[in-house]
Amino acid sequence: MSSDSKKIHILDSSLRDGAQGEGISFSVQDKIHVVKALDELGVTYIEAGNPGSNPKDLEFFQEIKKVSLENAEVVAFGSTRRKGITCAEDVQIQSLLSAQTDTVVIFGKTWDFQVTEILKASLEENIAMIKDTVSYLREQGKTVIFDAEHFFDGWNANKEYALQCLKAAVDGGARVLSLCDTKGGSLPLDIYETTKMVFQHFGSQVEIGIHAHNDSGLAVAISLMAVSGGATHVQGTLLGFGERTGNANLSAIIPSLELKMGYSCLPEGKLQDLTPISKTVAEIANINVTPGMPYIGSSAFAHKAGMHIDAVTKNPEAYEHITPESVGNERIFLMSEVAGRSTIIERIRRFNPGVTKSDAVVGEIIEKIKSLEHSGYQFEGAEGSFELLVRKSLGKYKPFFKLHYYKSIGEKPPLGEALCSFAQLKIEVDGQIEITAGEGDGPVHALDTALRKALERFYPAVAQIRLIDYKVRVLDSKSTTASKVRVLIESSDGLQSWSTVGVSSDILEASWLALVDSFEYKLIKDIERKFKSYL
Amino acid sequence: MSSDSKKIHILDSSLRDGAQGEGISFSVQDKIHVVKALDELGVTYIEAGNPGSNPKDLEFFQEIKKVSLENAEVVAFGSTRRKGITCAEDVQIQSLLSAQTDTVVIFGKTWDFQVTEILKASLEENIAMIKDTVSYLREQGKTVIFDAEHFFDGWNANKEYALQCLKAAVDGGARVLSLCDTKGGSLPLDIYETTKMVFQHFGSQVEIGIHAHNDSGLAVAISLMAVSGGATHVQGTLLGFGERTGNANLSAIIPSLELKMGYSCLPEGKLQDLTPISKTVAEIANINVTPGMPYIGSSAFAHKAGMHIDAVTKNPEAYEHITPESVGNERIFLMSEVAGRSTIIERIRRFNPGVTKSDAVVGEIIEKIKSLEHSGYQFEGAEGSFELLVRKSLGKYKPFFKLHYYKSIGEKPPLGEALCSFAQLKIEVDGQIEITAGEGDGPVHALDTALRKALERFYPAVAQIRLIDYKVRVLDSKSTTASKVRVLIESSDGLQSWSTVGVSSDILEASWLALVDSFEYKLIKDIERKFKSYL
Repeated sequence: MSSDSKKIHILDSSLRDGAQGEGISFSVQDKIHVVKALDELGVTYIEAGNPGSNPKDLEFFQEIKKVSLENAEVVAFGSTRRKGITCAEDVQIQSLLSAQTDTVVIFGKTWDFQVTEILKASLEENIAMIKDTVSYLREQGKTVIFDAEHFFDGWNANKEYALQCLKAAVDGGARVLSLCDTKGGSLPLDIYETTKMVFQHFGSQVEIGIHAHNDSGLAVAISLMAVSGGATHVQGTLLGFGERTGNANLSAIIPSLELKMGYSCLPEGKLQDLTPISKTVAEIANINVTPGMPYIGSSAFAHKAGMHIDAVTKNPEAYEHITPESVGNERIFLMSEVAGRSTIIERIRRFNPGVTKSDAVVGEIIEKIKSLEHSGYQFEGAEGSFELLVRKSLGKYKPFFKLHYYKSIGEKPPLGEALCSFAQLKIEVDGQIEITAGEGDGPVHALDTALRKALERFYPAVAQIRLIDYKVRVLDSKSTTASKVRVLIESSDGLQSWSTVGVSSDILEASWLALVDSFEYKLIKDIERKFKSYL
Repeated sequence: MSSDSKKIHILDSSLRDGAQGEGISFSVQDKIHVVKALDELGVTYIEAGNPGSNPKDLEFFQEIKKVSLENAEVVAFGSTRRKGITCAEDVQIQSLLSAQTDTVVIFGKTWDFQVTEILKASLEENIAMIKDTVSYLREQGKTVIFDAEHFFDGWNANKEYALQCLKAAVDGGARVLSLCDTKGGSLPLDIYETTKMVFQHFGSQVEIGIHAHNDSGLAVAISLMAVSGGATHVQGTLLGFGERTGNANLSAIIPSLELKMGYSCLPEGKLQDLTPISKTVAEIANINVTPGMPYIGSSAFAHKAGMHIDAVTKNPEAYEHITPESVGNERIFLMSEVAGRSTIIERIRRFNPGVTKSDAVVGEIIEKIKSLEHSGYQFEGAEGSFELLVRKSLGKYKPFFKLHYYKSIGEKPPLGEALCSFAQLKIEVDGQIEITAGEGDGPVHALDTALRKALERFYPAVAQIRLIDYKVRVLDSKSTTASKVRVLIESSDGLQSWSTVGVSSDILEASWLALVDSFEYKLIKDIERKFKSYL
């Protein structure tokens, strides 16, 4: 392994172990999008399940063969053969082969307790199962990664047996021995010492890998310690989701390996895509990148203490362990400076390429954003509203309609067969009046329905808009039912998606503001697309 | 330090460093509640700011003196004196003394770069600042914990100078040298080696401490590695919140130290309160305990993979690194079993002491809860609604009023001087009808106002109810404006506080359900109090 000893092979299991996380579920299309994102990032392996486990995985492995990948290799995942039968007879192993991947991952037991108590097999039988399965797969032309399940517990219980299991995999022809801390209960120093020992035994024949879980909050550390102990293959999930407390978080591991420990995990220059690609995967998985996530979270380089801000202004090294740009993130000074001055300038340049930092309009927009953020707005994740705000400040905007009034009526019990809420509104477009009404589940839904109907008469393209996400956040929950709320809406027209925001102590008004922004943004993008050459 | 070498002193900084976290803000009352919760858990020190930094902290230190604590000691936090003046002249040091705590924490620079580039002081002056400040505070009778800011960066840059700084603190009379990984950029093995060296230098004279930040996702590991290297004082925040990516998460550190490394951090038996007390602190800080949090998260012992569930049913040790009960958490099989059967039985026993697990009513209530949870209800954090549900199932409930209808009207622009929403309703109590209306900021506020007015005529005690918190959670954000929402309301009457919940795709109805539960719960508690002896 010496020729590329500084290269760490990353295996992402978001689609397999990650899918065991509470609330995580992928469609076939979702899985393909995740594969493309991870391939773009440049991990070595993408572990994606077993075609035999469900029809979705079967379809996925058929579809993914049509996708050409730049950097990564999709691998299927299964287990050692069942006791008492041959590999050729084992349905699960045959379905694993049907995935037609070059490389397969199989897990096997290496903890005597698991063999006798859970698998109810003899210790010898388990060793035969490991060796048979690996060598059978090798005969079928596969490269084999062996996941040594519960390895560290096995090591603590019965070192000799744990080593015999690994030896069976090596003898069978495995390329990688991935040591699993399946229960997530091991401590970093123990992992370090144990990995070193395993490396001494097998490091000259195979690659050593690590597969950690976060039950003790230590999965990232354990992965790094295993690398220090000789591992060159690291398994995890990009955002750390997985069974129970999750798998080792690769978005935290990769930067430390590359920036602090001198290893290379991704193709040259790709580390700078870590934050945006992580956000893409989070979007597909329908979860949030929590603000406090190391390296990629929106707070990872957010400074709040005045003293810290002063020092970082003098020299960022004072309170930043790496530069935010090196992982594609950005610095934020909370409540004292608006986020991303450079983002704002970049956005203005789309309309006015010559703008510079010192131009008055930059200052005006920043003041406007500051004051809106102070009142509860948040433009991160509301790109649509942000662009509209910039347009309004630059005079690149004309309202698409004028609201005369809206009125919403909620009733319990509902009248007759109707839904529980109604909205009525009157709008004006170029002097023409439209008065209409809609009903819905609750006042927001009713208002959405009514506005859509009214606008479609003038702007048929509104019919293409589909709201794909609606989030409500109570900002000052201590004000109780009169609390200010922030509504974030994500919309799509099939071609693209965009997000808008509204804030008010009236949830109806907050939703209205976000809806209006969403509809106007769509209409502006249509104009841009159609009339670009005239503008 | 040998007599209690197995005792680790925990310093919680939720109220100081934690308050630097994005979105974290405490009122004086909040701070007092946090102190009480942490004292009940049994940490050694609670770091709570500096009376000089703002009027809120001043008031807090006055108020907290009136609270008698069982286990913990509240400590004030400041820095070494400013350059060029004496401690007696330094306003910040004088305000630190005004906190009148027995112990104070002061931070000082130990990284030469920080001294010359950020502080703009000479290296000698900084050493004098450390020694003067510690010895001055000792003369005032204080025990001093010295936070060696940026210690590990300092050590890497200039070992000799970093040690001189520590020596100055020791010579001044510090009790603890807390080594800070201020930027959160250090690696576990380095921390281990460096802490060992520091321990060799000063371990016989003072206690060594560790203060880690999570910028690399390693704060928990670093804290444990420092303990392995000789540290016996660990700083962090109970839930890990703090500047940027947060401080070391004590709820993950304490169980590993106690259950895996043989140390004692909390009074005997208190580890079992870790999960509930963490939730209490999260409530006060108005944040969620994320499901995936190690040890205390709701998913920490949640099993989803069928194979894992089978194995855990045979023997929990198969996929659990510790027992959930040891940290006050519980095992969940996702989508197959309802949580907390014992909680339900315990609640039923308040009304019917002889009830057993096999009684039909227990099964009925569990089915009811399962079905409500399936539809989006959540009774954890909604004790009031939970009690009402149990009462309804046991026949220990009679409605306080009957709703004929409500009607809510929202208008934009608002009419005249009015607020933007109105609600009208008709209720009946013992055959008497009340029709009334209210206005408010948004439809929920208006409905709250109207219901209160209507009920007060029959139940004057309703006037005592104050809503103290209102939270909205969109449950299926993909259904957009027709999404189902869960509303959680916390109410208080000065004597006690209680929480209630409502779920509906109409936010108004969800709020209505939670409000009605809140009002009814209050009226029931009043009856219990007044007529207990008759019941």
